[in-house]
Amino acid sequence: MIKQADKEVSRRGFLKKTGLGLGVAVGALVLGPAFASAAEATPSSTPVAEGPFPYSKLDVTEGMVRGHAGYWKSGCSYGAFYAITSMLRDKVGGAYNQVPYRMMAWGRGGGANWGTLCGALTGACAAINMAAADADVNKLVSELLGWYSTIPFPSAEATKMGMAGAFTLTEKAYPKIDLIQTVSESPLCHASNATWIASSGIPLGDDRRKERCARLTADVVAKTVAMLNDYKDGKFVATFKVNEETESCLSCHEQDQEGKMSCTECHDPH
Amino acid sequence: MIKQADKEVSRRGFLKKTGLGLGVAVGALVLGPAFASAAEATPSSTPVAEGPFPYSKLDVTEGMVRGHAGYWKSGCSYGAFYAITSMLRDKVGGAYNQVPYRMMAWGRGGGANWGTLCGALTGACAAINMAAADADVNKLVSELLGWYSTIPFPSAEATKMGMAGAFTLTEKAYPKIDLIQTVSESPLCHASNATWIASSGIPLGDDRRKERCARLTADVVAKTVAMLNDYKDGKFVATFKVNEETESCLSCHEQDQEGKMSCTECHDPH
Repeated sequence: MIKQADKEVSRRGFLKKTGLGLGVAVGALVLGPAFASAAEATPSSTPVAEGPFPYSKLDVTEGMVRGHAGYWKSGCSYGAFYAITSMLRDKVGGAYNQVPYRMMAWGRGGGANWGTLCGALTGACAAINMAAADADVNKLVSELLGWYSTIPFPSAEATKMGMAGAFTLTEKAYPKIDLIQTVSESPLCHASNATWIASSGIPLGDDRRKERCARLTADVVAKTVAMLNDYKDGKFVATFKVNEETESCLSCHEQDQEGKMSCTECHDPH
Repeated sequence: MIKQADKEVSRRGFLKKTGLGLGVAVGALVLGPAFASAAEATPSSTPVAEGPFPYSKLDVTEGMVRGHAGYWKSGCSYGAFYAITSMLRDKVGGAYNQVPYRMMAWGRGGGANWGTLCGALTGACAAINMAAADADVNKLVSELLGWYSTIPFPSAEATKMGMAGAFTLTEKAYPKIDLIQTVSESPLCHASNATWIASSGIPLGDDRRKERCARLTADVVAKTVAMLNDYKDGKFVATFKVNEETESCLSCHEQDQEGKMSCTECHDPH
């Protein structure tokens, strides 16, 4: 199914990278044991059932407020996961109480600041997976990533709330200013941030850039909650399709790779 | 900190993509409610403590066997998360019993087959986050992603086990064959699979490609367990550094983006 000619051009610069590799050097940092003081949080010895947890429809605006607060506490992935899970603890309780919010904090900055999957998506996807049936998880997650790739962030609603000081649970004194919007055309943190930074001229380390991602986290929570509410009502409709250009690429290259990201973000058309 | 000239070239084809967007069409699929039959899995109303769960040193080979089995059951992300969490349930129990394995299944194929962060990494990172202190999570996760980007998959050890039929918990009749190795130079599922497929000539849908990712899942579990065992002993040393080329890029562009991925995988040098 793979033609030799396709293989030779399927990845830009494939050949020229031969032997390049990544330099690895031994660093000086040694981490000490952090386990000594840890205690078991629950004594229960009966494993949780491997099925979706009950879902109760949630409030979109409350989700945005919690997502923004969670971002400023421990990053985008924590923020999105905390927002949805904490609301489900309030409304449903039970099994949601035993899944720690902090376990998704690693997704920050696209995974320990590596810039891969946007952490707000990472946190939201884990929450979706807790509440949705196995057969539906991919549909909901794929829809969320597709939506993320196509809409301008931060939303007008999130910026309106930010400028009005409506993120009332956020402990940080966040910038209550207007922020420009950009479309990421990718679910990757790197592309999302680089696009916005290039358009805004506001650098990564600036609190205004962080506020952009705090509002984006609120937006991802809002979309996730809206999707799950529709799903609960039997009204969720998956609408995402790859764009025409990518569809054209995949007509030859579908079996050459895994993914739904826009090909021409990284590859030259041929 | 951002020069206009840098902005104009910081993303290949940035300008030409203006107005391109992703086509969205309304699909016909409506998902029904899956919640009706769900029951609360645990009646407990006391939330789990927000701190690392206790860790007990795990067996690397057992982790590989469980990771391989988990891959063939429900994908790479489930496989890695299941392998580590199930061993911790066996050795520690308690809080680990209440976190469902299935909640990380969404990471399969780089997130619902979008090709973003390799799902084996996604599942492993969530397990790391459960067991490690907040201050150390980024260091462990970043080390894992860096290691993944630089070593050949699947490992000789995993292929030796596969050929010997040593993955004894795997229910699927997996291909017990030799498989070529490739270095992904990226933590992204898309790059990892496309590189291996281009070199092997084995297409995405082939069971041999899936077996490659099953062994890769075993390898990611092995590395994660080895890191956590060292961490438990106070011997974990973070060694990853971006390669010299990327370091050179970041000397100007560090504030223009988020990420540690190799720049020239997608961007032309300038």
